[in-house]
Amino acid sequence: MTDLGPNKELVGIPGSRDALATPALILDLNAFDRNLDALTMFCGQAGLRMRPHAKSHKCSEIAKRQIAAGAVGVCCATLKEAEVMIGAGVPGVLVTSPIVGARRVNSIASLAKTGERVMLVTDNPINHLELAETARREGMVLDLLVDLDVGMHRTGTASPQAAVALAQQIADHPHTRFRGIQAYSGRVQHIESYDERQNIYNRQMNILRDALAQLSRAGLKPDIVTGGGTGTHDIDRDLGLFTELQTGSYALMDVEYNLVTLRKDAPSPFETSLFMQCSIVSNNAAGMVTLNGGFKCFATDGPLPKIQDKTFPGAAYDWFGDEHGKMSLALGTNETPALGSPVTLVTPHCDPTVNLHDHLHCVRGNKLTAIWRIDARGVL
Amino acid sequence: MTDLGPNKELVGIPGSRDALATPALILDLNAFDRNLDALTMFCGQAGLRMRPHAKSHKCSEIAKRQIAAGAVGVCCATLKEAEVMIGAGVPGVLVTSPIVGARRVNSIASLAKTGERVMLVTDNPINHLELAETARREGMVLDLLVDLDVGMHRTGTASPQAAVALAQQIADHPHTRFRGIQAYSGRVQHIESYDERQNIYNRQMNILRDALAQLSRAGLKPDIVTGGGTGTHDIDRDLGLFTELQTGSYALMDVEYNLVTLRKDAPSPFETSLFMQCSIVSNNAAGMVTLNGGFKCFATDGPLPKIQDKTFPGAAYDWFGDEHGKMSLALGTNETPALGSPVTLVTPHCDPTVNLHDHLHCVRGNKLTAIWRIDARGVL
Repeated sequence: MTDLGPNKELVGIPGSRDALATPALILDLNAFDRNLDALTMFCGQAGLRMRPHAKSHKCSEIAKRQIAAGAVGVCCATLKEAEVMIGAGVPGVLVTSPIVGARRVNSIASLAKTGERVMLVTDNPINHLELAETARREGMVLDLLVDLDVGMHRTGTASPQAAVALAQQIADHPHTRFRGIQAYSGRVQHIESYDERQNIYNRQMNILRDALAQLSRAGLKPDIVTGGGTGTHDIDRDLGLFTELQTGSYALMDVEYNLVTLRKDAPSPFETSLFMQCSIVSNNAAGMVTLNGGFKCFATDGPLPKIQDKTFPGAAYDWFGDEHGKMSLALGTNETPALGSPVTLVTPHCDPTVNLHDHLHCVRGNKLTAIWRIDARGVL
Repeated sequence: MTDLGPNKELVGIPGSRDALATPALILDLNAFDRNLDALTMFCGQAGLRMRPHAKSHKCSEIAKRQIAAGAVGVCCATLKEAEVMIGAGVPGVLVTSPIVGARRVNSIASLAKTGERVMLVTDNPINHLELAETARREGMVLDLLVDLDVGMHRTGTASPQAAVALAQQIADHPHTRFRGIQAYSGRVQHIESYDERQNIYNRQMNILRDALAQLSRAGLKPDIVTGGGTGTHDIDRDLGLFTELQTGSYALMDVEYNLVTLRKDAPSPFETSLFMQCSIVSNNAAGMVTLNGGFKCFATDGPLPKIQDKTFPGAAYDWFGDEHGKMSLALGTNETPALGSPVTLVTPHCDPTVNLHDHLHCVRGNKLTAIWRIDARGVL
């Protein structure tokens, strides 16, 4: 599984970015490095630990750089992500979605037996017993966090009372250890207005505040209070409830997050580091050309990809089917762009876009400097 | 690359379908076989050859079964699809999107040198010269079809005149051979009303009729006239312009195509054979549960996934983020479904959904009988 795709001979060659066989997912390493530094500085000043979410990048090379930048570990959404990260030597893995069902729960045993500790969340006493029974059978102790629903009803215990009861059940079982609490609010992250986001989020976080007070009264003070995202990190700091943040998109950014006012005093602390490079593959119609990237190249759950290319000022992207995109040229553009010309786009929603691709083409300026495999790609 | 995922031990075990680690893409082989038979019978009676489009399934095992069912070859949208199909021994590969740019065109030489003939389309005299120069350098003759734009302006020559000129340029060059013409109309395929689809399509196909007449007058009668899809196959037969059909979705079907009246006298000749199996991973909220499949599991460019499960009558799916789906239970459902329960869904748009996954879990009834790799997955 060391296949690096059709561009591997271009690594290290000056000007190679423009010569890439496309569609090619691009990581601008200078912008990426600055994003990592910006979060490290922010969390350092706030006294928050970083456990960035690997579901955004699904790439162990990125995870290693996040650890090098001071993260205590990474979050994973799936067991495959956890397996890949642990296999690549990434420490501090927390699986943030409940793992349910006999075949899934059994795979956790093999993960935990790699020696590297893995932490899981659970939101249900039946699921806890399933996990604990596996741990008992394997002769090990599983580190568990209670997932708390703060209003989205996606996962999590339905109330602070249920969270405390589940924490007690975990603490009481000889094969599970209660490590902490998770409270994540997904949809709020993308609300563009800071004030509106803060208002909704603060109300949700009262549920977490209540749960923490009840846990404390029950003698179950959590080591770890984890949650937050790129959209709420500034608010998370002011709340003072979390011990660590699960920010993911900050490292890459996308059209969606570029619309969000991220901080009160520094609205855009992170830069776009992730891009898609497509090529013009047909140019026979007036006022437009066809790019080789469509529904299979970009996530379609959010806004449109955005053309970000000095060569084509005023050009706009629209969907053109599974494999193609339409690039409308700015009014008054008389010259037809040449076949094969590269076109750079900002991706609409980074997480599901990255998941469509097998490789990240790392560039500094116009040079391809490395190709990283998106080794945790997929839904498993 | 023989990894078959976490379910490989379940192959051949009775009842194993319900035990699959999920999300798992399912191929119901009985329905799939009937779909292949239905198209074979249709094309046999119509005197049309079949060159099904592999962009729908991206799976060489499916392509082999399409060949066994009488197809003369398969269509491919990308070079990787073509490489994988040829590598697996699938004959008659036609790449239906123009291949543009030095690195891409150079890869064609290695494809053509595998011995198995590959056919390409082109829509541009400059692109033809790029292809021809590669063929000359490699000492070979490339088989080319002219791609004709019939109104979508995605790819294709802008007029029948331009198509004839390009065909002549191909025929005149010692290293390229003119094999035929491609006319594909993408968006029309999904128009639900038969009559509306037929009206729009017939007007578009007048452009093809004109091009064929002009080619004939120029002494450039094409061997191959290729196009058509699952949505137009019945109309394509009546038109009498094509020598072969590029139908792809007929083998799998999806929510989108299930809404289309496909034939005048047999509106639904094909069955859904492709399904997604998810599991219930959280059940703490009233009236709903959470499934482990979201934007990374289903294509989001079309309609919603549809829950198709006798166990949950009246239940409906909605998006719940990257990794999760919300299953609302029918009004009056009092029992909370158990954690881990499998849920079967029809996929919204099959092509980009298949592209999200690495494996097809082939079932007959409730038994997993094989796992096929989606070996041409990706955008390259």
